[in-house]
Parts: sequence; structure tokens; C-alpha cells
Amino acid sequence: MALTVSKTPTDSEYKVKDISQAVFGRLEIELAEAEMPGLMSCRSEFGPSQPFKGARITGSLHMTVQTAVLIETLTALGAEVRWCSCNIFSTQDHAAAAIARDSAAVFAWKGETLEEYWWCMGKALDWGSGGGPDLIVDDGGDATLLIHEGVKAEEEYEKSGKLPNVNGHENGENRIVLRIIKDRLLVDPTRYRRIKERLVGVSEETTTGVKRLYQMQANGTLLFPAINVNDSVTKKKFDNLYGCRHSLPDGLKRATDVIIASKIAVVCGYGDVGKGCAAALKRAGARVIVTEIDPICALQALLDGTPVLTLEDVVSEADIFLTTTGNKNIIMVHHMKQMKNNAIVCNIGHFDNEIDMHGLETYPGVKRITVKPQTDRWVFPETNNGIIVLAEGRLVNLGCATGHPSFVMSCSFTNQVIAQLELWKERGTVKYEKKVYVLPKHLDEKVAALHLGKLGAKLTKLTPAQAAYISVPVEGPYKPPQYRY
Amino acid sequence: MALTVSKTPTDSEYKVKDISQAVFGRLEIELAEAEMPGLMSCRSEFGPSQPFKGARITGSLHMTVQTAVLIETLTALGAEVRWCSCNIFSTQDHAAAAIARDSAAVFAWKGETLEEYWWCMGKALDWGSGGGPDLIVDDGGDATLLIHEGVKAEEEYEKSGKLPNVNGHENGENRIVLRIIKDRLLVDPTRYRRIKERLVGVSEETTTGVKRLYQMQANGTLLFPAINVNDSVTKKKFDNLYGCRHSLPDGLKRATDVIIASKIAVVCGYGDVGKGCAAALKRAGARVIVTEIDPICALQALLDGTPVLTLEDVVSEADIFLTTTGNKNIIMVHHMKQMKNNAIVCNIGHFDNEIDMHGLETYPGVKRITVKPQTDRWVFPETNNGIIVLAEGRLVNLGCATGHPSFVMSCSFTNQVIAQLELWKERGTVKYEKKVYVLPKHLDEKVAALHLGKLGAKLTKLTPAQAAYISVPVEGPYKPPQYRY
Amino acid sequence: MALTVSKTPTDSEYKVKDISQAVFGRLEIELAEAEMPGLMSCRSEFGPSQPFKGARITGSLHMTVQTAVLIETLTALGAEVRWCSCNIFSTQDHAAAAIARDSAAVFAWKGETLEEYWWCMGKALDWGSGGGPDLIVDDGGDATLLIHEGVKAEEEYEKSGKLPNVNGHENGENRIVLRIIKDRLLVDPTRYRRIKERLVGVSEETTTGVKRLYQMQANGTLLFPAINVNDSVTKKKFDNLYGCRHSLPDGLKRATDVIIASKIAVVCGYGDVGKGCAAALKRAGARVIVTEIDPICALQALLDGTPVLTLEDVVSEADIFLTTTGNKNIIMVHHMKQMKNNAIVCNIGHFDNEIDMHGLETYPGVKRITVKPQTDRWVFPETNNGIIVLAEGRLVNLGCATGHPSFVMSCSFTNQVIAQLELWKERGTVKYEKKVYVLPKHLDEKVAALHLGKLGAKLTKLTPAQAAYISVPVEGPYKPPQYRY
Amino acid sequence: MALTVSKTPTDSEYKVKDISQAVFGRLEIELAEAEMPGLMSCRSEFGPSQPFKGARITGSLHMTVQTAVLIETLTALGAEVRWCSCNIFSTQDHAAAAIARDSAAVFAWKGETLEEYWWCMGKALDWGSGGGPDLIVDDGGDATLLIHEGVKAEEEYEKSGKLPNVNGHENGENRIVLRIIKDRLLVDPTRYRRIKERLVGVSEETTTGVKRLYQMQANGTLLFPAINVNDSVTKKKFDNLYGCRHSLPDGLKRATDVIIASKIAVVCGYGDVGKGCAAALKRAGARVIVTEIDPICALQALLDGTPVLTLEDVVSEADIFLTTTGNKNIIMVHHMKQMKNNAIVCNIGHFDNEIDMHGLETYPGVKRITVKPQTDRWVFPETNNGIIVLAEGRLVNLGCATGHPSFVMSCSFTNQVIAQLELWKERGTVKYEKKVYVLPKHLDEKVAALHLGKLGAKLTKLTPAQAAYISVPVEGPYKPPQYRY
Repeated sequence: MALTVSKTPTDSEYKVKDISQAVFGRLEIELAEAEMPGLMSCRSEFGPSQPFKGARITGSLHMTVQTAVLIETLTALGAEVRWCSCNIFSTQDHAAAAIARDSAAVFAWKGETLEEYWWCMGKALDWGSGGGPDLIVDDGGDATLLIHEGVKAEEEYEKSGKLPNVNGHENGENRIVLRIIKDRLLVDPTRYRRIKERLVGVSEETTTGVKRLYQMQANGTLLFPAINVNDSVTKKKFDNLYGCRHSLPDGLKRATDVIIASKIAVVCGYGDVGKGCAAALKRAGARVIVTEIDPICALQALLDGTPVLTLEDVVSEADIFLTTTGNKNIIMVHHMKQMKNNAIVCNIGHFDNEIDMHGLETYPGVKRITVKPQTDRWVFPETNNGIIVLAEGRLVNLGCATGHPSFVMSCSFTNQVIAQLELWKERGTVKYEKKVYVLPKHLDEKVAALHLGKLGAKLTKLTPAQAAYISVPVEGPYKPPQYRY
Repeated sequence: MALTVSKTPTDSEYKVKDISQAVFGRLEIELAEAEMPGLMSCRSEFGPSQPFKGARITGSLHMTVQTAVLIETLTALGAEVRWCSCNIFSTQDHAAAAIARDSAAVFAWKGETLEEYWWCMGKALDWGSGGGPDLIVDDGGDATLLIHEGVKAEEEYEKSGKLPNVNGHENGENRIVLRIIKDRLLVDPTRYRRIKERLVGVSEETTTGVKRLYQMQANGTLLFPAINVNDSVTKKKFDNLYGCRHSLPDGLKRATDVIIASKIAVVCGYGDVGKGCAAALKRAGARVIVTEIDPICALQALLDGTPVLTLEDVVSEADIFLTTTGNKNIIMVHHMKQMKNNAIVCNIGHFDNEIDMHGLETYPGVKRITVKPQTDRWVFPETNNGIIVLAEGRLVNLGCATGHPSFVMSCSFTNQVIAQLELWKERGTVKYEKKVYVLPKHLDEKVAALHLGKLGAKLTKLTPAQAAYISVPVEGPYKPPQYRY
Repeated sequence: MALTVSKTPTDSEYKVKDISQAVFGRLEIELAEAEMPGLMSCRSEFGPSQPFKGARITGSLHMTVQTAVLIETLTALGAEVRWCSCNIFSTQDHAAAAIARDSAAVFAWKGETLEEYWWCMGKALDWGSGGGPDLIVDDGGDATLLIHEGVKAEEEYEKSGKLPNVNGHENGENRIVLRIIKDRLLVDPTRYRRIKERLVGVSEETTTGVKRLYQMQANGTLLFPAINVNDSVTKKKFDNLYGCRHSLPDGLKRATDVIIASKIAVVCGYGDVGKGCAAALKRAGARVIVTEIDPICALQALLDGTPVLTLEDVVSEADIFLTTTGNKNIIMVHHMKQMKNNAIVCNIGHFDNEIDMHGLETYPGVKRITVKPQTDRWVFPETNNGIIVLAEGRLVNLGCATGHPSFVMSCSFTNQVIAQLELWKERGTVKYEKKVYVLPKHLDEKVAALHLGKLGAKLTKLTPAQAAYISVPVEGPYKPPQYRY
Repeated sequence: MALTVSKTPTDSEYKVKDISQAVFGRLEIELAEAEMPGLMSCRSEFGPSQPFKGARITGSLHMTVQTAVLIETLTALGAEVRWCSCNIFSTQDHAAAAIARDSAAVFAWKGETLEEYWWCMGKALDWGSGGGPDLIVDDGGDATLLIHEGVKAEEEYEKSGKLPNVNGHENGENRIVLRIIKDRLLVDPTRYRRIKERLVGVSEETTTGVKRLYQMQANGTLLFPAINVNDSVTKKKFDNLYGCRHSLPDGLKRATDVIIASKIAVVCGYGDVGKGCAAALKRAGARVIVTEIDPICALQALLDGTPVLTLEDVVSEADIFLTTTGNKNIIMVHHMKQMKNNAIVCNIGHFDNEIDMHGLETYPGVKRITVKPQTDRWVFPETNNGIIVLAEGRLVNLGCATGHPSFVMSCSFTNQVIAQLELWKERGTVKYEKKVYVLPKHLDEKVAALHLGKLGAKLTKLTPAQAAYISVPVEGPYKPPQYRY
């Protein structure tokens, strides 16, 4: 795809697959709005006061229909927005088209190369001569990473004249990032520092990104405040558990049309995502086996009726393999070689290194047969057995289906809106230092409360006597901070 | 679509959407073969003796990837085959293309008009000057219906000179059938009787078709033997229950991307299909309500934890409405008017008259907004509320997804192969009269047995003493005929 | 226990554990009545016309609280009743006491010896000088068996002067039966034939008894008409499935207090009872493995997510073993020896020969430690490992808990009442020959309908047009005879 | 019961129901040991070094079979132990007898009066002239409360000469506590202060007790260090969720024998306990409705497929009512009056004030019919309708069944042992101040790990590269402190 930027009649930049899909995108966005009561409530509660007036927001987060409702909530509250996706397969092109046409600058399409991916990121961060954004909505931390790596390289270059050692990295993606930084460094050696200067803060969506942030906080290298949206209960316990419970079987079915009932499925990892996926598979009639490193999660699996074994124990018997760990090197090519013919291998964790795609791609004599986009059969020469890898080892629910449904994303994204509002409101204060923060519990409870009416739910109200008895305010928050839900 | 027939290099006729999709179709057929152990076992067991040598088989059954494996099992056993679909939306065009290119004459595409549908049926029944097929694989009974109506019209015409009264029917589809018969009558007044003469018998796939057959048997109008495949345990209890449990949520998710968890879903009918659908919805986190006419099925629903109410009781509260009854006039337009905005309405029963599509289409001022194919939002003028109707009120799992998965279809279709073999083998004998037959239990058990190995299952063997104790042969059948499973 | 008969102030005979428990029994009977709407409806519908006036009914069926409500329904309809239990452990002594005090002659207590069991049977059949009962309610067929064996012995004796060869049987219970018959033969050589003469018919409750009846029908040895209540849908599909789903975990928990979650449980047999038990165990968090002889049931288990293996495959790994087969010799002592320490072994099938209790009891050096009644730890001398056998290998849900709950028994027992009414009404007609009959479907549907109101359910009513469309009467029955539910 | 203390041959004090039940108790304790691998591992790991040598431990915790295994683990590690129960109905008398006979001083029986309860508490705290215990294992905080109230009263009395105003309290139980303190004060005005002086610390088992501890910490009135065992993941997430999932249906079934399937059940509160109970009820086939004050927990219920309403909405329709809140005044007598006849009302929360027992007992004209111990039917005079109250409104799973199964209690109690070890080891250090502490995560993970082997589980081991990638030590802990599981 030629990397050229288009403009709408109102001069808004974009690069999407097909702007004419905006009509279809708009129809689906309207349907999604009805399923996202939290975001729509934000529009009605905060819209009139235009709290984001003057704010530039860059987002790097799967450019789906649901994200479109988030973006248009941000613009409804007064923000200017530029957006890219945080995964090469996760964009829904019709959603991107509708947003590009109507609401914000978008640089995203389904099936980007890694080169294209980072080009889009650059565009989303580029607010013209005035520099970067005021706020970032990040997912997985790539926007944050680019700025931190950029600043580091600029400082090193300024200090020592050394340019980033692009070929020093074994990981292809890291090489791309460094080359982009290096190329820019030669023409604009203060770009990332200017971005950093302007930036008020970032709100991060997911476990992987949060982990990076806490590492930077621990190292003292974090350059700006960050709100950890991922660990809001209404995000982590809902998106990860209920979202995956919906979208994992959706991805499997769309990609393979294979019955799940009667299959043996291995779920690597039994955190919230693994719990949601294991539940979905079991309810669909699979026999689930879990692999775990953590004895507590392992014991949960066991009491949920699921055996806990190692991958080695079951690799030659199972029909479906799924990684949910957020770690790397979980399913290696030597495992894949031992699998049954037509075993299905996929990942719902953030990055594509849970499955050893590199090992698979470079295996001598391996043959790749693309059944349809995101569904590849890889045949090993020794056995002529093939395994079916979904979404090229990336997020199967976004690559092979449409990701989490609107309702759970409404929970996550309402947290994002509230986090962005908080950062922006406190931009001139000292409330937020260069640290990672979690939203306070009363806001978490508020996010939940905004989603109850749509479901016809009625809360019980504490009497003052009852509230006193359990030592909480009548209006909440109702739980101590360490409460696990 | 212009109704012109194409030919392959080997002179096989076809009319499909795009013959170039054959490559993709073949890849998916190969994947499906691995999931259809019953059919593949038939190929290895019966292929060498070519039992269908000389037999012409016409099929009228959803032209999907799974059906492709059935067709190629029939041809592997020596048959010549012509095929059409039995539903205007259920064809998978790539599967049709692969079969048309490689194995059989196919007349089917996704999105036929009713006119086109009956044209395809005519083509599938037309074996050239030699007349009709020897055997029919029917689903829903349309091929059987056409022959019976044709014979009736021919006989009436011969007797009284009266032509069918095309406009005497209120139902549009009936009018089309009669016009086709009438048109043919004028040029070939013995066509359907010649077909009937040659025909050895039919094997019928589904409840609806079977019901028609028993009615004809009761009326004494059945023209040829019929095997009721639908009531084999390995068909009815597997396809209906496990198939729908897989494919109903698949269709809902692909069509709407809406979360099922937390929704209120009404399932009309709690037969095997309703049981499978209700289980799927409940496991996905919906609150399910059942409507039933039969007190026994109602009591089953209640003990399964599901309230039984009337549609009127819940029409304005539910989010998802599904018909599974095989009856007509279940959800009427006056119900649809009372539903919540964006309520989802769909049908997984065979015909599109469970939902009052005619009433909806002709409702004054109603507006239809097609979100995407098979997903329409119908907006009522009084309220400006819309409901979302899937697959135009037809089979939602085939219209919005890809139908039942291969493994359960392997059970159904292995019954079909065995039924066809039986009819053909006995063609010269008096074993089968003009009646409806069910396959004997030992064949039903055989179908199941052919599917166990793939799942790593091991059966326990009765000792002679145990067999004597429960009065069954050691090798089965193990249950009395009335056993319900 | 000394086998002496007591009399109530109104001269009704009884032999129960403790007549003073009648007060407690009455309280529980009253609670049960509220849960048995089918029986209570029979009382209000038929009570006024006293249809059983003049009828003597003998019952041989677990003397529980629920059976008490059945008995008092029979007496409310005019019958005189004598009752015994059909299992040595299944009597609830307080229920027996209440019935003995208030309503009928009862001979039953928890923990009978086999000698005592058959003594009770004799008493229940003994209506004084007038001979036997008019009607029998049988469960497992022991009353029927005794009469058939008695008649056979009497005829042989009359013909040849030969007495039954008591010691010719290896089975201890058979020896007891023959000795009873023999003892009686010497003093009253026409007793069983007089019983047979008077007897109008029997209604049989359970699979085991029904199997015996069909065998006798096949052999031409059945002496009187029998109604197979077991195969009414509202009995077989409710009692077996929903009843066991409730009572199996109840029995396990009361007997052992062991957590079911995380355990490996083997369920031998996947009929209705096995399905109910497997579901209960799985829902409680066990990993379930099924053993089966029937490929159809095996395939159901697999699609329900349950592996199917042989007992040998898993005998040394599982924690809980349950037999549900109705066959014999399922778990043998050589299996038990291989089990893990404290493995739990139990049976929910009718007879105690599913588990090789004889082999266990006679195993050299085995040690039996009774933890509490019905919970025995059997320790093997070689390994010093013990297994825990529940209810001495007999019905675990009745031996260790209180059997099926009232509501499902109301379904079963309403069938019994209707069957008894039918037999009695037709006593002078030729409607019922010496054959086995199933109740017609409209009565089956009626039984279900009587249970809906209590659950707040509302049935949908067919319109005449809909009824015509699916070819059923508006008022039912709604399904063809072969329908499987 | 006369409150006299007995002595064993070895001079150990006790007051139990029947010391001869020790034999039966011992058998059940031995079975439980096999299900409590965490405690047994503690015995083998720590037993040889006798870490509790010289320590006096007082326990106030349900005197069940499982607690017996805890007590004998403490004694196996060198402690001297005195024990009482923390609930008047929860003692298993045979377990108490076995411990009294073999291992520790016990003062507990099923069915204590409140007077007797506090007498037992006094005895368990009374170590003779030397004063009180070194360590306390508390459940619900009553032992802790008594000491705090005692110290307060002594100080007030010393300061002002004022005695506790026994009649100033409306709550009967509080009056009893104050009278006990007052009576002692007159004879030994420094008793509770001497206990406080000696006491190293307390480990608290449950939510209710922990709440009290945090309140005292907040008020600055906490007199000694406390370890909050309740909030260990391996306690709170296992005991509350999996324990209740097992024991709630057990209690319901033993108490009422009523089928749960088809019933409407209201669960008040959707915390861990409510989640476990709701899951159990739903899996048993009930239709569950949840009441909640907390919008987050409410949203979890909704996405789990459960409606959230207020008690008022459903009070007249539901069949089963359960409180799980830990709050007071949840089901009031005015609610009970509106319930259906024979509605079941019970509580699984710690105290009996969740259900308004006082209001019920004092309702004019109400009639109490005890069906059996712990199962009372209360009949209202206006309607003659009765409701069935279980365990007198106290812990239904302990009052009507045997509480949580051994395996989950092993998790909880292993935390107790580790907490007691920690307090005792640090008795001379300043590590623990007068504050509330939670066990560190690596000990929590250790507790889980000790339970995996018994279940045949195998953990996956992190490679150093993987550990570095997710920034955790190879040997754990694997999760950040705020992780919710």
C-alpha cells in the first residue's frame, strides 16, 4: 500500500482501506452506540461543558467500531483526535472509514505490514508543526514506547553522537522502531523531546502496556504521568473475562467452522483472560486442560474442574491450543511439530511472541497454505501433517472476529474517558507525577453504575444503619482497595 | 442473475456464483474431510465395490462445504450427482464452485430469489432426455413436493384439462411452484410422472420434510418409498441439539457482534433445536425464557432452570427473539412493534414463516435499513424504534454463519449415505413400499461408532453374561426401539 | 428385629422401626405435599368420585416421604393399601411410621436384612383369607417376581411333586425367595395362584422391573397385564435425569463430606441416569469420565465434553466411581484393588450387583471399617489402601440421602396413579391383555401439565391454523409416539 | 446442660456432648486428613523442629472435623491448645469428642445457648493461674472482642469505679458478654489485662472478624498484632467461593429435601460467597436473582446471566431466599410475611442478624413448628402461610450440613498455621505492631502449591528469559499485590 495521506473535504487527514465503507461503518457505529451506555452517558453528562476543549488526543488502540464510539465521545467532549491501531490485523476498515470521514484523523487498516504499522503510529503522533498531542490513549504501550525510545536516542545522540544500532536487535519489530527513530533523528533531533514536553499524560488500556509502565516507574525512566486503566475492576475483570468469553469462540468459529464440542483444548495461562477463554471452551463442550506457572491460578483451575498439566504432557493429544499468558515463547515450533494433523493454534495475548511464529516461518521445508486470510495451514515436511495457525499468531479474537463486543468495551472505554478527563483537568496541578496511577474506586463504581440501567437492573440502597454497620458511606465506595471481586 | 448454464471442460453443467472460488472451496473441503470421519469411513468401506454404479442422485440440500463432502462421498461410491440448495441463503459459493468444477452438476448460490431457487431445483431434477434421478436426497421436502405437485397437476390436466390455478394461492412461493409446473405441463405433460416412474426413493433430512412425508403416507398420496433420516438418533439428537448449540451463537455474533451475556433471550419452542439454542444462549450468559405449547417440553425447560411464559408476557422486555418451532406465525408484526429498540429477531426453523416477514414488509411506513447482507434494521414509523431481523427471517445459522459444523453434519450425512445405499440396494425388491421408514437401530449405532475413533474414545465391551443379563446381543443394538436417549 | 406384626388402634397392621416417629413423618409429608402438585391434583380431581372404592392395592416401592404422599393419594381415591419397600436401605422410618399410624398397612424399615425384606414383601401381599391384592404398584419387579416364581413352583409341585431346589442357586437372594415359596408351598399349595387369579394388573416403576416384564412377555410367561410407568416421558426423563442430578451429589456429600470439585469421577453408563449424574458431578466441579457400551450414548458424552474410556484405563487415577448401568459386574473386586486410597465407590442403579460386593466381602484379608451407617472403608491387606463403599453397593441416593426430591417423584407417581386408575377402570374389559403397556401420550402430557402451575409457567396455545399446519389437535398430544424429548 | 468441666485420664479438660463419640470422630478425622494435604505437609515440614514448643494457643473456630485436623497440626508442631466453637450450631460433636479425648481441651457442642457459648469462650481463654494464651486463632472475632471489651471495662472500672451497664444494650448477646465481664471484674479486676499482656497476637479467619480488626486499627484501639488470614487469596477466594458452592446446596438439601431445579432463588449479595452460592443454585437448575448494593458486583451478576433486582421486587414470587452479605437487616419480618407458603429462608453470612429473627420470633401470633432440628416452619396468623427458616437464621451450611469440605478448609487452615508460626517466630521482634497484616504473596502461593500434588497437577516452570520478560522471579511470587485472581 502506498503510504500516502488523503484528506477529507474538511481537510482532515486519513489513510484507510476504503473511505467509501464509511456508510457501512456509520450504521454499525450507530448499533454499537446502543450497546455502549457508559460512553453515551459521558456524552450527555460532560458534552455540554466541553471539558476537552483545546485538547489534542492521540490514540493507538484497535481501530474498531467500538473504538469509533470512544473517539466520537472524546470529540463530543471537545477534543481533537488522531488515531492509529495497535495491532496490524485489528482494524475494522469500515469503522476506520467512518471516523476518517466524520470525526478524526485515522491511519489504520486491516492487514498492515509492520513497516506500515509504525508509519501509522508516526502519523497519529504528528500534530504538525505544533508538535505532539496533549494526551495519549495507548493500548499495549507502543505509542509510549516510541516516545521513550525516541527521547532516549535523541539524548544519546546529543550526548555522544551515537545513532541507534538498528541491527543490534534480533527482534525485527525493534529494528523497525529504531530505524524510524534514527531516520527522524537525522532531520529533527528534538522531535520526541518536544512531544514529551507537551504531553500531559497517557492512559493505558492493557496488561502488557501497564507492565511496561511499572517497569519504567521502577527504573525511574517514566517521562510523564500514566493512568493504568487496565487495572480498574470494570476494565480488567470485564473486558478480559467477559470479553474473551464472547470473542474467543467467535474467532475460532469464523476462522475454522470447526465444532468445539468434543475437542481437547489447551489453554496456556489461567489469569482473567485464560479464565474467560477456558469457560467459553468448556461451555461449548470442549475438554479443557490448563497450563500455569502460578500455583494459585492452578488451584483455581483445578477447583473449576480443569486439569493442570504442562504443554509437553498434552501436545500430541490436543486439538486446539490457545495462549493467554502475556509472556513469550509459550508454544514453540518443536511443540507444533508434535501436534496432531489440523491442530488449531492461536493466541489471544497481546503480542505475537507467545507462539513461536519466527521458528515456524523459518522451519526448513515447512509449507504455508493460506485457506483464507488469517487462517493458515502450515505443513511440516517430515510428517506431512499440518497445523492451522490463526491470525498469524496475533490476537485471534480481533484478527479472526471483531474483538470484544460493544458492551464490555463500553466499560473499558468509559474508564478511558474518565482517565483522560482526569489527566486533562489536573494538567496544571501537581496531582499526577511521573508515576502510574489507578482510578479511585468511586470512579470504578461509577463506570459500573452507568451500565446497569440498560440491563434493567435495580440496586439495593444501604440504610444509614447498614452503612454504619459495615463502615462504608451510603453512596460508596463499598469495598476496601484490596477487594478482589 | 441471468439463468444460463455453464459447462466445465468435462462437460458437467453448473450455475454458481463464481467458479474461480473453487480453489478456496477445495481447501475448506479438505479441512472438513478431517472433521467428517463417518463419511470418510464410508468411502473406505464402500468405495472399492462402487455400490452406486449406475445410480443418478439428485440432491436438494444446503450447498455447503459439508454437503460437498457428502456429494463426493456419493460420487466416490459410484453415483452421478446433480445438486441444488434447499434454502436461498444457505449456499457457500466456494463450496458450490469446487463441486461444480470437480465432482457434480451444481445449481446454487447464496442469495437466490425464489424464482431462481425453483429454477435450480428444476435443473437438479433434469437428467436430460432420460428423465429424472434414481434417488433423491431431500431437505425440507421441496424436491419431493415438486414431483408430487407435478404429478397431481398432470393427472388433473389429463383427466379434466384443468391447469393449476396459479393465482389461487396466497403464498407467493406456492404460486411460483405452480407456475413452473403449469409452464412445463403445456410442453411436456408427462414429465413428473416419468420422474416418478424411475425414482427408487428419497431420503429426507429434516423435521419439516418428514412431517410432509408422514402426511402423504397418511393420505395415501406418497408416490415412492422414503427413508426418514431425520429421526435417526445420530441425526436428530446430534444435528439439532449439538449443531444448533454451535451455530446459533455463531450466527448471532457474526451478524450483530452484540454481547449475548446479560441479554434477555426468548426461545420459541423447546424441542431438540430449542434445547440446543437455549443451552447455547444460557452458557453465553443470557437470561433465557422459553415459550412452549407442549407441557412435557415446558416442564423440561423449567427443570433446566428456564421460565416458560408466553411471547406476550415478555415481548417488550427481551433483547433477542428466536423461533425454533417448525410452526408458522410465531412472531407476528404486532409483536415486533412492541419490541425494544434494536431487539434482534431471528429464526432457526426451516421455513421463513415462523416470523411474519410478510406482515413486516407490508407494514405501512416501515423502513428497512440493510446494515450488511442478512442484517436488516426495520424501523417502525410510530416509534422510530428499529428491530434487527437476521437472514430475512430464514435459517439464521446458515444465512448469517456457515451452518452446523462438519462433525455433526458427518453424523447426519453418514445416515444419508446409508439410507441411499439401502434404497438403491433394495431397488428391485419389495422391501420398501410407498411408505416412510426409519433406519434400523444397528445402523444408527454404526453411524455413531464411526465417529468415536477420531475423538479418542474407547467403548466398553459387554461380556456374554452381561449381554444375557440385559437381554441384548453382545454386538448390539443395545436399546429398545422406544429408547429416547 | 423380631418379625412380629403390630396393630394400630384401628386394627391396621404394621411393622416399622418406631411408630412414635409418626409425628415427624407427618410434618415432612405435609411439606412434601406442597411439592407434589400432580398427586394433589389427582386428589382434588378424582377424590370425590372414589374410583378405587373396593380396590386392594399392594405396593412394593421405597417407603419414603414421597411414597407416603402417593399412598395417601391412593387411599384418598378410595383404595385400601398394604405397603413394603423395594430396597433394604431406602425406607425413611418416620414416613413409614406416619403411614402405618394414619393410612395403610406398612412393613418396612431402613436396614432390613434380606430375610426381613422378603418377609415384608409377603406381608404386603397377604390380604388375609381373601387372598391377594387387586392391583400392585411395583418397583424393580420383586412383587411380580415372587408371584411368578410362586405360581411356577406351585404348578411344578402339583405336576411332579418337586419342591424348589433352594440350594441350586448361587445367588443368596434367590435362595431366600425360593425358600419362602417352598415353606409356603407345604402349607398352602395354591396361594400364589389365588393371588394371580384376583390380580387385575401391575404398574411398574423402574427400568429393571420393566426389563423383566418385557422378557416375560417375550417368553409368554407374563401372568397379568402390566403398565410400564417407567417409560412415560414424565417418569423416565424426569426421575432418572433430574432426580439423579439432585440426589447423587446429595448422597455423596452426606456420606463423605468430600469436596466434589477437582475430583476425577468415573460414571459407568450414560443413559438418562448416567447423564443426570454426570451433569451433577461436572457442575460440582469434577472432571468426569464416562464408560459406555453403546456408541450412540458414547457420542453424546463426547459432545457433552466428556471423555469416554474403559474402566481399566482410569481405575487407578479416579477419585469417585459410580455405576448407573442396570447391568451386573461393572466394578469388580480386581478393579477396587487398583484404586487410589480412599477412592469412593457407589452405585445408583437398582440392584447391588453392579458393584462386586460379594467379591469384596470375600476377598482374603480385607478389613471393613464402618465409618458410619452406609459408609464403609474396606482396606486391602496387600496395600493397606482403603476404598470407601457407600450404601453397601446399593442405591446411593436412597441409602445415603433421601432419594429423589418430591417434585420429580410427583411426576413419577402421578403416572402411577393414572396407571392404577386405568387398570382398575378396565378390570372387566378386554382392553388389557397379559402384556406390557405404556400410557398414551395424552396422559403423559397431562402429568406434565399438572406440574406447571406450581412453577408459574404459562403455556402458549396453538391456533387452529397452527395446529392444522403441524397436523396435531389443538389440545394435543403434540408429538408423534417416537419423539425422544 | 450443666456447665461442668470433665477431665480425660491425662487430665485434659473438656466439655463436649458425648465423649464416647470420639471413636466415630477419629474415623472421620482420618478421612479428612487425606483431603487436607496443606495441613499434612505442615506436619511433615515443621513437625520435627517443634516450632510451637511452649506456645499456648486458644482457638475460637467452628469445632468441626476439619478444625480437628488443624488443632492436631498445631499440637504436632508443639503447641498446647484450648478450643471452643464460634457458632452455637456449628460444632460436630464427634469431632469435639475425638479432640477432647486425644489432643486438646475442648469446650463445644452443637446447639449451645448463648450463655453456654460465652461460657465455653471463657474456658478456652482460661489457661489457669498463669493467665491467658500466647496466640489466638479467631473466627468472627469473638475472642478478640471479649478481650477488648474486658480490658476496656477494667480500665473504666479502675478509673471511675463504673461497672459495665449490662442492660444498656438492646442486643441480647452484648448483654451476655457484658455480664460475664462484669461478674469477673468483681472477683478479678485485671484478668483481661493480664491476658492482653501475654498475648503475642491473633490470626483471624473471616470477613466479619477482619472488619472489626480494621475498625479497631482505625480507631487506634487494637491491643495486639493481628494477621488477616481471611484476605489471603487461598482463603478468601477458595473457602468463600468453592466452599460455599459445595456446602450451600448440601445444607439446603439436608434440611428440606426440596428440589432446587425449577425454583426461584434470591441471593442477597454477590461477593465471593454470593458468587459461589449463586453458581451452585444455578447449576442445580434454579433461576437465580441477585440483590446488590455495589454496582460493580451487580454488573458481574448481570454478565453472569443473573438479573439484579431488589428484594421488594421479588419477595412474593421466590421460593428460596439466602443472605450472604455480612450486613444486617437484609430480610425483615415484613418481607417474610409477603413470601409464598413454604418459602425457604436462610443465611450463610457469619451472624444471625442478616435475617430479622428477632422480628420473626416476636411477631404477634406467629407459630413455630420444628420439623426437625434446624428446620423450622414459622406460620403467620393472618395468612396461615408458613415459611421455612433454616438453622435459626445462622450459618446454614454449618447448621444444616457439615460446612465447607476438608479440601478447601485445608487451604484456609494452612494459612492459619503459617500465620500462627509467623506471629510466634516474631514474638520477640518489632516486626508486628498493633496492626492488621496480610500474609505475603509468596506464602499465599506456597499454600496453593501444597495442594496441587494431591490433584495430580503439574506446574509449568518459567525459564529465566520468560521470568525476566514479565519481571518476576523464576520461583515467584508471580503476581503484583493488587492482582485480583
